[in-house]
Amino acid sequence: MALNETHDLSLTSWVTSANDSATDFPIQNLPVASFRVAGSEQSFRGGVAIGDQIVDLQQLAEKSIFVGLAQDALLACSQEDLNDFMAMGSQAWSALRLALSKALRSDAPEQDIIASCLVAQTDAEFKLPCTIGDYTDFYTSIYHATSVGKLFRPDNPLLPNYKWVPIGYHGRSSSIDVSGQAFHRPCGQTKAPDATEPSFGPCKRLDYELELGIYLGAGNALGDAIAIDDADKHVFGFCLFNDWSARDMQAWEYQPLGPFLAKNFASTVSPWIVSNEALEPYRVAWSRDENDPQPMAYLESEKNRSEGAIDIQLEVLLETEKMRSEGEQAVQLSQSSFKHSYWTVAQMVAHHSVNGCNLKPGDFFGSGTQSGPTHEEAGSLLELSKGGKEAISLPNGETRTFLNDGDNVIMRGYCHKEGHARIGFGEVTSLVLPAKQ
Amino acid sequence: MALNETHDLSLTSWVTSANDSATDFPIQNLPVASFRVAGSEQSFRGGVAIGDQIVDLQQLAEKSIFVGLAQDALLACSQEDLNDFMAMGSQAWSALRLALSKALRSDAPEQDIIASCLVAQTDAEFKLPCTIGDYTDFYTSIYHATSVGKLFRPDNPLLPNYKWVPIGYHGRSSSIDVSGQAFHRPCGQTKAPDATEPSFGPCKRLDYELELGIYLGAGNALGDAIAIDDADKHVFGFCLFNDWSARDMQAWEYQPLGPFLAKNFASTVSPWIVSNEALEPYRVAWSRDENDPQPMAYLESEKNRSEGAIDIQLEVLLETEKMRSEGEQAVQLSQSSFKHSYWTVAQMVAHHSVNGCNLKPGDFFGSGTQSGPTHEEAGSLLELSKGGKEAISLPNGETRTFLNDGDNVIMRGYCHKEGHARIGFGEVTSLVLPAKQ
Repeated sequence: MALNETHDLSLTSWVTSANDSATDFPIQNLPVASFRVAGSEQSFRGGVAIGDQIVDLQQLAEKSIFVGLAQDALLACSQEDLNDFMAMGSQAWSALRLALSKALRSDAPEQDIIASCLVAQTDAEFKLPCTIGDYTDFYTSIYHATSVGKLFRPDNPLLPNYKWVPIGYHGRSSSIDVSGQAFHRPCGQTKAPDATEPSFGPCKRLDYELELGIYLGAGNALGDAIAIDDADKHVFGFCLFNDWSARDMQAWEYQPLGPFLAKNFASTVSPWIVSNEALEPYRVAWSRDENDPQPMAYLESEKNRSEGAIDIQLEVLLETEKMRSEGEQAVQLSQSSFKHSYWTVAQMVAHHSVNGCNLKPGDFFGSGTQSGPTHEEAGSLLELSKGGKEAISLPNGETRTFLNDGDNVIMRGYCHKEGHARIGFGEVTSLVLPAKQ
Repeated sequence: MALNETHDLSLTSWVTSANDSATDFPIQNLPVASFRVAGSEQSFRGGVAIGDQIVDLQQLAEKSIFVGLAQDALLACSQEDLNDFMAMGSQAWSALRLALSKALRSDAPEQDIIASCLVAQTDAEFKLPCTIGDYTDFYTSIYHATSVGKLFRPDNPLLPNYKWVPIGYHGRSSSIDVSGQAFHRPCGQTKAPDATEPSFGPCKRLDYELELGIYLGAGNALGDAIAIDDADKHVFGFCLFNDWSARDMQAWEYQPLGPFLAKNFASTVSPWIVSNEALEPYRVAWSRDENDPQPMAYLESEKNRSEGAIDIQLEVLLETEKMRSEGEQAVQLSQSSFKHSYWTVAQMVAHHSVNGCNLKPGDFFGSGTQSGPTHEEAGSLLELSKGGKEAISLPNGETRTFLNDGDNVIMRGYCHKEGHARIGFGEVTSLVLPAKQ
């Protein structure tokens, strides 16, 4: 992929809110979601964000003003699940992006027609953008792996395979929902370190994980590996992802086969999918410390070295029940960047398929918790509170080691640098309800 | 559930092959699959096995000779995926079973109409019977867990959580296919115990796992746990399941988050789903050794104690390339029974949902490798060959520690006891192809 006219910083839109330098959704972004007018009986359908508006792709398809691949893409986006659009591949994704970019520009002759297809974002509700077949969670932050490893295995924090294998495991797709998800604190078995037997009850160490989510595109047939330099063609786009975790349940259940009930009670995605193409200006070089093992051949390429990483700023905020009732703003708990990831997205794709495992349109990867190199950049409370030993003080006098009922966790993400448009991800929020008992 | 007229041993069918005492598919069984005439352009549709024939449920639905819930069930079974039928719940499953039982009996007046809907099993091809949303693999044989544990962790074979937690982990659904699946030996990273670095190449320790597969029915909403005594209503039925495993890849990758590429390259199910109701005569008492911890309240019930286990005989056979070329029969490697399972299906369902995790129609559980108490009853080569240390001698002079290219692994299962009809599962076969490189 390369920069093209859709990335041009000088482009402005006749949707004037898209020209605000603080918007997440300028004309250079154009992320897609599945939405409908809130509270309506409409079926959900694809939409593209522009400023504070949404272009209704089902309505636009009916206008038949696009042609060829762009119109075919619009028809695929008229469905409530975007799997068919994802399956069309990167040529179709680019064709729709270019057609929308042209039609939304300040001087576009299509303005009146498109304007009739706009819905204000404040009037919309969202759903998961596709049927997620399989969900895989990776573990790509070496800072997260090391600090969590210290808590679970003090003598052996980073296992010998970490620097060779892009560690991942299968997660549960049924309990993934879109921003706004409210879920009950899970119940389960836990065992206190000094107890002789486990006990049953509500999770006492409920945590978030600050992750990037990755939707897969066309995918591969069973038995065919995806070469690392072909991986990007299979990546449909990115979102924010909160991979809720019950740390006390996790500690008791995770050996020998990995996390299970500690993770599968809820996971939350942001509604908008930012395309791989929109992120092109934010690709940066990826490197491996010379003292570390270098990647095996199937995980190595010049392209991956020169542009494999992506500089996406991520932040997590907390809004407690007290803050809500007193009208206070949510407070930032930490910020980090995806550029710190020990493994790139292309390496995740190449690794996942090297044994012939088939990836399908709409499959989903979590990046793993994106903790940065310093303690302040940790992407989970487990790390920020040092395993629950040091409470975090909030500006309003409250403290937290893990999450309380009524806590609302908010994650945001964006890319920004001189000479390029800000590419925002919007946000993912989700509320902790008391345990059902 | 209780025994009813459909279980009556004295029932015979006008499909005379169903009256053979050796058939897997007497009139008391009536398992369902998704099939079509092999090589045809037909869409797949539901079918029910009777003797050596299949009742085409799509054709039968068009005849409109059933009424009410049974006819509604037929319409759901006219689709290529049986998820809608699974979602209808146990009342609908029973209604269809009873209507088919009556119509297939020796004296049934519907004989001519149903006869026009029969397809010979030898003329059919099968597909996965539903879209599997999420697949969870359990680990319910304490004999398997102990002997595998000894190989991976000699000092610590059975972890402290095993007797408290029905251990399970999420698997990959995209690579599950139906009997007849041929797959390439997977490539990946492995590390020999004495090597300083891992290497990349074809798996050298390819293994099968003898499991029972379980399809879920209606399921639960996110946040709602399924009580142990309600679990059976959520179990649609059972099949045979071969959970292929790359042991050398597994040993290198599985810590700390569990098996991943060692498992997700292929998994194979038998085509027929035997209903929970058909297995009713084979339910047996379940107990827990008095020296072991007794189950926590959410995993405990009188009903589970009195009839939670099911006595399903399982066997695994090997047909090597040499046997095929010389016209020799496959040889049995081991046999076992699901009655040895440390946890029951109801306990698996209750545990999986106790944290609010939602189960959906068509979701799939693997029981975990069903090894019995003796070495000869081991459900994997890893166990039979004691970690590859002792080769198994085959009658034709060949030996195996793990699988060779060209090996065809066959699993069969059935229930049989005095006074009840034999309930068979058919078989699952799958062929190992050489690695693609």
